[in-house]
Amino acid sequence: MTADSNWQALAEAKRQAILNAIPEKWRLPTPVPAASEVRDVTGPYIQKYLSEREIEITEADAVDIVAQTSTGRWSAVEVIEAFCHRAALAHQFIFFEAALEDARKLDAYFAEHKKPIGLLHGLPVSLKDQFHIKGVETTMGYVGWIGNFQGRKDDPRHLTHESELVRELRALGAVLYCKTSVPCTLMSPETVNNIIGYTWNPKNRLLSAGGSSGGEGALIALRGSPIGFGTDIGGSVRIPAGFNYLYGLRPSAGRTPYQGAANSLEGQNTVLSVIGPMAPTARSLVMVMKAVLSQEPWYHDPLVHELPWRDEIVDQTLALIQQARTGKSSLAFGILQWDRIGRIHPPIARGLQMIESTLKRLGHTVIPWNPPSHARAIELADRAFTMDGDADFTHHFGLSGEPRPKQVISGPNALSVTQITELNVAKREYQKEYMDYWNSTAKLTGTGRPVDGFFSPIAPHAAVVPENYKHVGYSCFVNLLDYTSVTLPVTHADKSVDVRPAIGELAEHVDWDYDAEAYDGAPVAIQLIGRRLQEEKILTLAEYLGTEIGMTA
Amino acid sequence: MTADSNWQALAEAKRQAILNAIPEKWRLPTPVPAASEVRDVTGPYIQKYLSEREIEITEADAVDIVAQTSTGRWSAVEVIEAFCHRAALAHQFIFFEAALEDARKLDAYFAEHKKPIGLLHGLPVSLKDQFHIKGVETTMGYVGWIGNFQGRKDDPRHLTHESELVRELRALGAVLYCKTSVPCTLMSPETVNNIIGYTWNPKNRLLSAGGSSGGEGALIALRGSPIGFGTDIGGSVRIPAGFNYLYGLRPSAGRTPYQGAANSLEGQNTVLSVIGPMAPTARSLVMVMKAVLSQEPWYHDPLVHELPWRDEIVDQTLALIQQARTGKSSLAFGILQWDRIGRIHPPIARGLQMIESTLKRLGHTVIPWNPPSHARAIELADRAFTMDGDADFTHHFGLSGEPRPKQVISGPNALSVTQITELNVAKREYQKEYMDYWNSTAKLTGTGRPVDGFFSPIAPHAAVVPENYKHVGYSCFVNLLDYTSVTLPVTHADKSVDVRPAIGELAEHVDWDYDAEAYDGAPVAIQLIGRRLQEEKILTLAEYLGTEIGMTA
Repeated sequence: MTADSNWQALAEAKRQAILNAIPEKWRLPTPVPAASEVRDVTGPYIQKYLSEREIEITEADAVDIVAQTSTGRWSAVEVIEAFCHRAALAHQFIFFEAALEDARKLDAYFAEHKKPIGLLHGLPVSLKDQFHIKGVETTMGYVGWIGNFQGRKDDPRHLTHESELVRELRALGAVLYCKTSVPCTLMSPETVNNIIGYTWNPKNRLLSAGGSSGGEGALIALRGSPIGFGTDIGGSVRIPAGFNYLYGLRPSAGRTPYQGAANSLEGQNTVLSVIGPMAPTARSLVMVMKAVLSQEPWYHDPLVHELPWRDEIVDQTLALIQQARTGKSSLAFGILQWDRIGRIHPPIARGLQMIESTLKRLGHTVIPWNPPSHARAIELADRAFTMDGDADFTHHFGLSGEPRPKQVISGPNALSVTQITELNVAKREYQKEYMDYWNSTAKLTGTGRPVDGFFSPIAPHAAVVPENYKHVGYSCFVNLLDYTSVTLPVTHADKSVDVRPAIGELAEHVDWDYDAEAYDGAPVAIQLIGRRLQEEKILTLAEYLGTEIGMTA
Repeated sequence: MTADSNWQALAEAKRQAILNAIPEKWRLPTPVPAASEVRDVTGPYIQKYLSEREIEITEADAVDIVAQTSTGRWSAVEVIEAFCHRAALAHQFIFFEAALEDARKLDAYFAEHKKPIGLLHGLPVSLKDQFHIKGVETTMGYVGWIGNFQGRKDDPRHLTHESELVRELRALGAVLYCKTSVPCTLMSPETVNNIIGYTWNPKNRLLSAGGSSGGEGALIALRGSPIGFGTDIGGSVRIPAGFNYLYGLRPSAGRTPYQGAANSLEGQNTVLSVIGPMAPTARSLVMVMKAVLSQEPWYHDPLVHELPWRDEIVDQTLALIQQARTGKSSLAFGILQWDRIGRIHPPIARGLQMIESTLKRLGHTVIPWNPPSHARAIELADRAFTMDGDADFTHHFGLSGEPRPKQVISGPNALSVTQITELNVAKREYQKEYMDYWNSTAKLTGTGRPVDGFFSPIAPHAAVVPENYKHVGYSCFVNLLDYTSVTLPVTHADKSVDVRPAIGELAEHVDWDYDAEAYDGAPVAIQLIGRRLQEEKILTLAEYLGTEIGMTA
């Protein structure tokens, strides 16, 4: 494969096409000010371009939106118009006409039948640019995918194919209207590509929105979307969720349908990428997970397990929470202060302290988390991610000749079949050791059970200063273990608070040498990790604890 | 690695050790007659060495045995003695003393508590020689594993390690007493190795017991065991189950715990080997699957999904069966007459006819099964099985210098990482196409649903004439799809019936050029295949249809 045209011209044309898709009436009358002037564009800055009604709609969460659209109080059309407007202000890739047409059909259905078409009737849902939608191009950040299907010229699926998740969302009554930016290759914790450029954090435009689902993170933080779907192979849902003060779910592999979506490193099946939702509230994640599973994706994606949403697990978890409220300690959690590899910034250390004090205030048991070495997990995950010796990335960059962003993680050495099978065995053995460690905590919790989950940093730092992402080990060990994880927004970095005396003199795991000024105001989130396939339990806990942490903060 | 000693001497010593483990009182007073004299050793031949009581015990099925042992009517000791005696007559590798000690403990428990220790209290369970049991050697058919742990000298797990399934069976109150022969490498549909030699079919000692769980098949056919566990990567439970007129389950990957068992091709994770039970009745399989899942193996094996036994699926299936009994057609099945690759012998064609007439008699819908090409499935499975270019087999044969049996399936070319990832993608795409085909049958069934399952030959022939196994495609396509499958014993080959006019002149898919004399009396079984992870449904259907087919026969 060789570059068949000037990649800069292709990328520029694509950028223009994205801008041209924004209706004239929604274009900003004045240029966006420099980041140094207006760091945070999420609040008053963006609100001043919106009507009261648009603000009301776009700042409702997904659950409240569906409550309105499912009862006819809000029309699907006015909701999608409000979100398209807000997303357009963020210069996002919206397909307004198609979305409007879908919304009109939903309103007509409601008018005729006096009931919603499905569980997500009228809910706008944004999607990371890996999902195929009829009539909408998927580039996955590659210039070489512009004008074709996943880099394949003349593939008839171009602009016609839809991913399984898209089919299900439509069946549920969701309205698709926006696709969001990703780093080319997806293997980067920051979002940068040669089409859109760099995706900044809307809360602080000097910082990163994270990656690889960074476009989703930024858009939802701006409330240009109430909920979106990203993918996570090493932290790509959790990092941007955390950096944008959102809840984000990394389900276990086999819970959500990846069928028919574009991906990197296709066929690498040692550590699987998974699809997960991101939103400002935990209950929004519960609603969409439950809705997607109601579509029985296991009959449409061969890798999805037949595992419907289990309300009985939600109920069991709520019963444990209720027990705790009546004074009996009934929940226990581990806290991983650090992984003994990457020292954490003071705001993250403070976030963990907030979690711990909240858990103690609520009467729960907290134990230190001393698992098998995370260095091993990280090394195994790294071998899985780079097993093809860069063949996939080399091919896709080569389609256009575009340069490679420096944030892309890659490795030069292809593994042999024996190295791959040894890797698979080593991964399984590591999973077993970690499982045995988890089981062993039953001796320490006082609940008669092992811990109900454990907390860990998502990254060593809050939303990162570009090109300063040091260590993806805090997110990728979860993928190697195939555990469930949900991010909890906890606090914001504060240069007046996140200083040595506040955190403790002897905290050797804290990296004091950090730029308190640059990080000031950056979102801080912590992840709650559950056992494999326990999405119902960790989401229920996240909703409960998220509310309680808010009260502590 | 080089051969460190004479492999013949090692194998001979092992054979003697197996024979020496048989108590003096149970040794046969006279040599076993030649196969030409006594073909079938399952009935009167073996019964004449057993007491009335021993026959009563050993010819009860697992469900009836547990009913007796769980209520104190039969002691665990007398049950295990009867099965050890019968297994000893079959020259099996029994560890009588350890089994007796376990049985005594169970009886003491029952005497003290007046209740069983678990769901399988006092049930003898035999195991394929891949499972590790404390104090018992595992050779997996390799001379090079004699005296060490999986070919690793000085590995401390030798004689001390137990597989997860073994731990669970013990917790359930099962009594382990016997390990059964496998073909070295496990990748063979006949059971032959350099230690035990060839495993013949006890129903007809001129035929094969099948493989790779051939020792299990033969032992259970002889009623030297009421139930046992084998493993299946390409048919290794279903082939010997079918060849020995047994029910055998191939669950989907992730349903039963493989943790801590020996295996071939470790770390090949494109097509996973799975553990499944084999027994003379379908209800026995239900009982042990339910029991094993009650142990929550997902907390002990990282690859097992959190999917308890679902009684609600059993109930739904029974309700559909009940509906059919009241006259409404409510179940629909596909029948795959042949895969357009391997023509089938007349007894197999007749077995399929018997299935079809039974289904029609019961008022169910039958449709022809015209799925995506099985040639593709077989080719993909073959690439998965041989991806390491024989590295694993070469290593293990090399430990002793023993010769390689000709039945072993292998391929000389190691795949590159790109070939492996392409294989994984091709497999997923094939699974998706097959799934879509399955879904499409909803248009044909008249039940409002796609077919509830489909029937297929397990092999082109009944229990095979040694070295005449032609085509594993009828079993291995199921593994590629990761579907559930259970074998149903249907009939026996009959030289007076399985002739051209009886089957139909125009049946081009039937291989008329077969040796009717050699196959006369050979067991014929057909497999019922269900969707992924639908073990409850296919076992319920197998129990129902197995009984009904028996009435037709």
